Amino acid sequence: MSLLVVGSLALDTIETPFGKVDEVLGGAATYISIISSYFVKNIQLVGVVGSDFPEKGIELLKNNNIDLQGLVKIEGGKTFRWSGKYLHDMNQRETLFTHLNVFEKFNPKLPDEYKKSEYVCLGNIDPVLQQKVVEQVEKPKLIVCDTMNFWIEKKLTELNSTLKIIDVLIINDSEAKILANDSSIILSAKKILKMGPKILVIKRGEHGSTIYSDSFMFSIPAFPTEKVVDPTGAGDSFAAGFISYIASKNSISEDILKNALINATLMASFCVEGFGVNGILNLDKNDIENRLNKFRTILKLPSA
Amino acid sequence: MSLLVVGSLALDTIETPFGKVDEVLGGAATYISIISSYFVKNIQLVGVVGSDFPEKGIELLKNNNIDLQGLVKIEGGKTFRWSGKYLHDMNQRETLFTHLNVFEKFNPKLPDEYKKSEYVCLGNIDPVLQQKVVEQVEKPKLIVCDTMNFWIEKKLTELNSTLKIIDVLIINDSEAKILANDSSIILSAKKILKMGPKILVIKRGEHGSTIYSDSFMFSIPAFPTEKVVDPTGAGDSFAAGFISYIASKNSISEDILKNALINATLMASFCVEGFGVNGILNLDKNDIENRLNKFRTILKLPSA
Repeated sequence: MSLLVVGSLALDTIETPFGKVDEVLGGAATYISIISSYFVKNIQLVGVVGSDFPEKGIELLKNNNIDLQGLVKIEGGKTFRWSGKYLHDMNQRETLFTHLNVFEKFNPKLPDEYKKSEYVCLGNIDPVLQQKVVEQVEKPKLIVCDTMNFWIEKKLTELNSTLKIIDVLIINDSEAKILANDSSIILSAKKILKMGPKILVIKRGEHGSTIYSDSFMFSIPAFPTEKVVDPTGAGDSFAAGFISYIASKNSISEDILKNALINATLMASFCVEGFGVNGILNLDKNDIENRLNKFRTILKLPSA
Repeated sequence: MSLLVVGSLALDTIETPFGKVDEVLGGAATYISIISSYFVKNIQLVGVVGSDFPEKGIELLKNNNIDLQGLVKIEGGKTFRWSGKYLHDMNQRETLFTHLNVFEKFNPKLPDEYKKSEYVCLGNIDPVLQQKVVEQVEKPKLIVCDTMNFWIEKKLTELNSTLKIIDVLIINDSEAKILANDSSIILSAKKILKMGPKILVIKRGEHGSTIYSDSFMFSIPAFPTEKVVDPTGAGDSFAAGFISYIASKNSISEDILKNALINATLMASFCVEGFGVNGILNLDKNDIENRLNKFRTILKLPSA
C-alpha cells in the first residue's frame, strides 16, 4: 500500500501562551507524512525546499521511513516560511506572515514510482498544485484534499476544479460556510457534497468533527486533551490520521470512514500537546491504543 | 412522579430571517412544562404573570395537563416581556429588551403539594428565586438548574450559592468559560464541577452538547435539523428534555443521564423548527420515536 503526500515543508515561527519557537520544522507535508508513518509503510512525499532547509529536517523524515524521491531542493532558493500567534483562546490564531518562497514556482513532477500510488493526500496548498499532482497519479483509490479560507477566497475557480477530481474534502466549519455561502452547517454540507467530493469532513476545533456523505453522517467530539500547547499542524495531523487509517485497511466502507474520523481526531490530539512536530514524534503504539480505548469509552452510546 | 418547574412565563417578540411574531406565549417555564408534559404526568408550575397574560396561554398550559396551583397572577401587574432578534447566522442573537415586570418582586411560595416534588427544574431566572424554590422542596431526588451569562455577570455570588444546592447545571459553552474564567472548555468543565454541581451539561449550539461528571463524559452532536426557523426556547426545551427523561425513569444512572442528553437534544431540535412554542406543541409520540431512531443511527459507534 502506498500513500502519496503533497504539501508544504516549512520553517515555522510559532507563539502560543505556552512559549515561542523560531524556524522549527513544519508544513502540511511534514505533519502528514510523520503521522501517516505510524499506519502506512510506503509514504511518498512530494514537495520543495530551499537550500536553507536544515539537514536534520531531512534526517527526521528519512528516519520515519518517508520516501523523499519526490522532494525537490532548489539551490539558492528559500524554504517556505510561516509564522502564527495563538492568543489566550487557542481556538483563534493570527497569521503573522506566510512566505511561499520556493513554493511560488513549484511545478510538481512525480517520480514514476509515485504515479502508482493508491492513496493520495493533498495537503493544504494551492489548488492548482493539487490538481497537477492528481493528474499524474494513474489509478488512485482515494484522494483526500485539505484546503483553507485563503484558497476559497483567492482561488475559488481553481478550487472548484480540484473539488471535482477528489473524493474527500476536509475543511473546518467556518470555511465550509464560506465555501457554501450558507450560515447553516448542515445545509453547507449538503451544498458542498454537490460540488464534487463524495465525502465531506468538517472539523469544528474543540467541538469535534463530522463526516457527511449522501448516505450517512457521523459526528464525534474532540478528544478531551487538557494539555493544548500548540495547535499548529493539528489540521494536517487530522487529515493524515484520516487517510492513513483508510490506507492501512486498504478498503473503504462506512465503518472504515467512521473509524478513520476517530483516528484523525486522536492524531490531532497528540499534535496539539507539543510545540511544532514534537507532539507527534515517537508516538508509542500503546499510547495510541490507550487513547483510542479511552475515546471509544467516551463515544459509547448508552443502551436504549 | 412529579416534576416541579420554576421559570418565567413571558410574552415574546421575536424576529428571525424567517419572520416576526409579536407578544407570543413564551418564557422558560412555558417551554419546560410543555416539553415535560410528553414524559411526566404530574408537572407543577411555579411562576408569576400579570393581568395582561392572555387566557388562551393559561388554557394551553391546562390542556397540556400542567398543574397551575403555583402560578400567581398579579392583578394590575404586567407580564414579563422579552424581545430578541436572530441574524442571518441563527447561532447569534441580539436581545432587544427584557422587561422583568411582575418578576421583579416575585417571591415564590410553593403550594404544600409541590413541596413533595421529586424532580425540580430551575428555569433560567434570578438565582435568588431559584434558591427560594429549592429551600421549600422537602426531599428532591434531582435538581437541574439552567442559567445564563446575565446572572453570571450580575449575580455571581448568588449564583455560586445556588450552584452548591443543585445537582445538574446546564449552560452553554461561552457561559461555562465565563463562569470558570478559562478558555479551555475541558478545564472549564473541571472547575465548574468543583463549584457544586455533580453533573455539568454544556450546550454548544449547532455543535451539540456534552455531559461531564467526575466519573464520565459523553458528547453528542446536535440533531441535524435543516429547518431552523426560531431558536427561542431551545435551551429551555433542552433542559426539559433532560430532566423529564430522568423523571420518567425515576432513576439516575450513567446510561440514564446519557439518554437524557439525547432526549434533550431531540426536544431542542423540535423547538427550533417553529416560531415560539409552535415547534413543541402537539408532538406525536411516533415523531419523537422516529427522530430518536434516526439520531441513534447517526450516533452509532462503528465496530473497532
